[in-house]
Amino acid sequence: MRLKAVYPGSFDPVHNGHLDIIARSSALFDEVVVGILENDGKSGLFTVAERLDFMRRVITQANVRVVTFHGLLADFMKAQGARAVIRGLRAVSDFDYEFQMALMNRHLNSEVETLFMVPAEEYTYLSSRLVKEVARLKGDISRLVPAMVVEALRARLG
Amino acid sequence: MRLKAVYPGSFDPVHNGHLDIIARSSALFDEVVVGILENDGKSGLFTVAERLDFMRRVITQANVRVVTFHGLLADFMKAQGARAVIRGLRAVSDFDYEFQMALMNRHLNSEVETLFMVPAEEYTYLSSRLVKEVARLKGDISRLVPAMVVEALRARLG
Amino acid sequence: MRLKAVYPGSFDPVHNGHLDIIARSSALFDEVVVGILENDGKSGLFTVAERLDFMRRVITQANVRVVTFHGLLADFMKAQGARAVIRGLRAVSDFDYEFQMALMNRHLNSEVETLFMVPAEEYTYLSSRLVKEVARLKGDISRLVPAMVVEALRARLG
Amino acid sequence: MRLKAVYPGSFDPVHNGHLDIIARSSALFDEVVVGILENDGKSGLFTVAERLDFMRRVITQANVRVVTFHGLLADFMKAQGARAVIRGLRAVSDFDYEFQMALMNRHLNSEVETLFMVPAEEYTYLSSRLVKEVARLKGDISRLVPAMVVEALRARLG
Amino acid sequence: MRLKAVYPGSFDPVHNGHLDIIARSSALFDEVVVGILENDGKSGLFTVAERLDFMRRVITQANVRVVTFHGLLADFMKAQGARAVIRGLRAVSDFDYEFQMALMNRHLNSEVETLFMVPAEEYTYLSSRLVKEVARLKGDISRLVPAMVVEALRARLG
Amino acid sequence: MRLKAVYPGSFDPVHNGHLDIIARSSALFDEVVVGILENDGKSGLFTVAERLDFMRRVITQANVRVVTFHGLLADFMKAQGARAVIRGLRAVSDFDYEFQMALMNRHLNSEVETLFMVPAEEYTYLSSRLVKEVARLKGDISRLVPAMVVEALRARLG
Repeated sequence: MRLKAVYPGSFDPVHNGHLDIIARSSALFDEVVVGILENDGKSGLFTVAERLDFMRRVITQANVRVVTFHGLLADFMKAQGARAVIRGLRAVSDFDYEFQMALMNRHLNSEVETLFMVPAEEYTYLSSRLVKEVARLKGDISRLVPAMVVEALRARLG
Repeated sequence: MRLKAVYPGSFDPVHNGHLDIIARSSALFDEVVVGILENDGKSGLFTVAERLDFMRRVITQANVRVVTFHGLLADFMKAQGARAVIRGLRAVSDFDYEFQMALMNRHLNSEVETLFMVPAEEYTYLSSRLVKEVARLKGDISRLVPAMVVEALRARLG
Repeated sequence: MRLKAVYPGSFDPVHNGHLDIIARSSALFDEVVVGILENDGKSGLFTVAERLDFMRRVITQANVRVVTFHGLLADFMKAQGARAVIRGLRAVSDFDYEFQMALMNRHLNSEVETLFMVPAEEYTYLSSRLVKEVARLKGDISRLVPAMVVEALRARLG
Repeated sequence: MRLKAVYPGSFDPVHNGHLDIIARSSALFDEVVVGILENDGKSGLFTVAERLDFMRRVITQANVRVVTFHGLLADFMKAQGARAVIRGLRAVSDFDYEFQMALMNRHLNSEVETLFMVPAEEYTYLSSRLVKEVARLKGDISRLVPAMVVEALRARLG
Repeated sequence: MRLKAVYPGSFDPVHNGHLDIIARSSALFDEVVVGILENDGKSGLFTVAERLDFMRRVITQANVRVVTFHGLLADFMKAQGARAVIRGLRAVSDFDYEFQMALMNRHLNSEVETLFMVPAEEYTYLSSRLVKEVARLKGDISRLVPAMVVEALRARLG
Repeated sequence: MRLKAVYPGSFDPVHNGHLDIIARSSALFDEVVVGILENDGKSGLFTVAERLDFMRRVITQANVRVVTFHGLLADFMKAQGARAVIRGLRAVSDFDYEFQMALMNRHLNSEVETLFMVPAEEYTYLSSRLVKEVARLKGDISRLVPAMVVEALRARLG
């Protein structure tokens, strides 16, 4: 049995907390599919193509693939033939929201199990939203996101 | 003493978790008034008239009435001559928000007591927002909302 | 339909936050039964007879009765012919524990609904355990518990 | 060593819970700087100039100064030569968000320590957002905000 | 790569929520090792030998083994050559405690990752402690634990 | 105005998370008094004299004094002529308990303000109880407590 895990998210943009979870997952599972959600209703700071490009360039693990998807995660799991969803769970976190989504995803596809992983403590305060807010105010984000994302944020936010 | 309880909400649209709370309330109290909030500032997916229609058609209990209201809940309570507000409280929930509203409502009308009830466990992951999100992505919502709401969501969201 | 509510607890000893919930309940329901739990396994600071005596002497509402019970709350509800359990829910609270108990009680007696009420904000920090701890250290508890309990605590804790 | 504390916020508008924290801080620290954030991206109900005016008129403590700032709080702290950030922490609260911000601020300026203070219990349910919502619905906010803010809210919200 | 997961606990006694997590794990991982902790300091209601016997008799999955261990989980993981710890996470839960243990276990053995799984909603209110409390009070636990545990609890608790 | 802060606790034994809070406090306040609570009712692993000795030997800041106290913290604050209580607040934490204690302490001595500080992220999982548990099971605690405490724990726990 090969265990393929899917790590879904917006990744707008990817930050070091995401990369920490990807590294931990790739050491544990046979294959990790990072799924970047194309959300029709909500446009991000970066296009899905840009987010895909960032992610592909910073991923170094051989057993990690990056793809985009739209629609329900429950359907994407079927299409991937995968059963395990990975989500990072910060101490400072939206645990209730994550729990609700895990139950809804299982309701929609009873084969889907969500596995919550704990990132390194130093990423406790990281979120894409907060990274963008700090970047917008010219704060130093060089220890929070990969170098290429630092530059892209500077370019985008002027 | 007849105990009249008010169950206020947006109900945009009503889902099975709401119906569970209504059934439980109607078995406990003499009279339950479902109050659908007309929120001037925020337009919903369904109009208040549509929400009222859904609710009236799915309610089967003789001691439950459905009305709409606008303005403060604290004032609606006075107008209804009712003192008990019913709110469902999910394990996966915005407890802090609900607690804050209960205290504010009592501040505005010292006669008002909020009674939090616990829905059946299987509704832990249900919220109107999430139902709409799943419906938008063509997920199966037939076990989450009444049949007429399934159809209305399909029609509305194309 | 007369609505009889049961307010169960250890009440070892009764404090002003309990009395606040009793006052609010008695204004809402036809009849309130304060049920003091005789816990075989756990002995309190005060005997159940003492707790019953305190409670009976401080209760002023005509529609509130005080009794003791042992065994399951779910069974006590049946014996009382009551369906509504009242519990106070502090912002600073053991919400998770209370939620778990509400679901277990409903599992054991499907007729039982727990109604959580919100005490006045000034009782946010009150619990019987904390009152006893403060009394033990000779702190002033005169605004936290009824006068007779102040004296009883002094006598008991030397 | 003189301890200067900064109390940052949007204060749109100032409410009695804010004033409670300011009074407590000013009794504790040598100097308190209330910093009203000019948020480029988000316009409030009141302009920053109006918020500054309200705050200056209701502050009575000699050791409290009110200023506006924009950009990162971490940078504002440096500019002020201050190390202590004050934040009120309600029992009913966004603790997780506050914790995340405290860690991010320390990441951006390792000299910054956030000190969380507890307001009086009666302000448990107060937030500027909720005050505005109640005012919009013509609720009585006279015990929630200073008199001048009551009038300004009436004038603004018609 | 074969993924062996360890599901540690006291299992005093095993209940249906545990069995739910075991079933979900065994469908996901190549091998699941249920590790029953021999806690030197704390004696349970059932001996470790009894708990092992219950667990072995109710486990039906071919890829699940049941063993006992004492000492640190971090050391047990090394001895098993396993990296993934499974823990169930209830909405009504000790999330903070679980999170703390996950970080401590990783501190003690950097190879160990904790994967939190979500049990079925109907087990939200289940814990071994609560099952024992209900059994002690002669409540019906037949839908909460396997039949053999119902009998054992009856025999033990008289 | 000299700001004297009191950092109370059991410190049984002191761990690196405590030292982190002491370092942060001593950089902020004029004087920090570490108050080790002599709890009559509860005996610790180490005597109060031992805990005092550990603390005094590991404290390096000139403006930090270590004393023991018994009785109410509210009374100790008066005796010290201090108004600010320092408490560390972990993301993984007993926030509710701490909040309750802060309100009770202010109830008992209206001059007392509790200031919650955030320790470094790497101490998120640390507590004296957990350190003792790991030490008891022969886990490596050398990065969690000062060297002298490592030895003392080994000696005490055999």
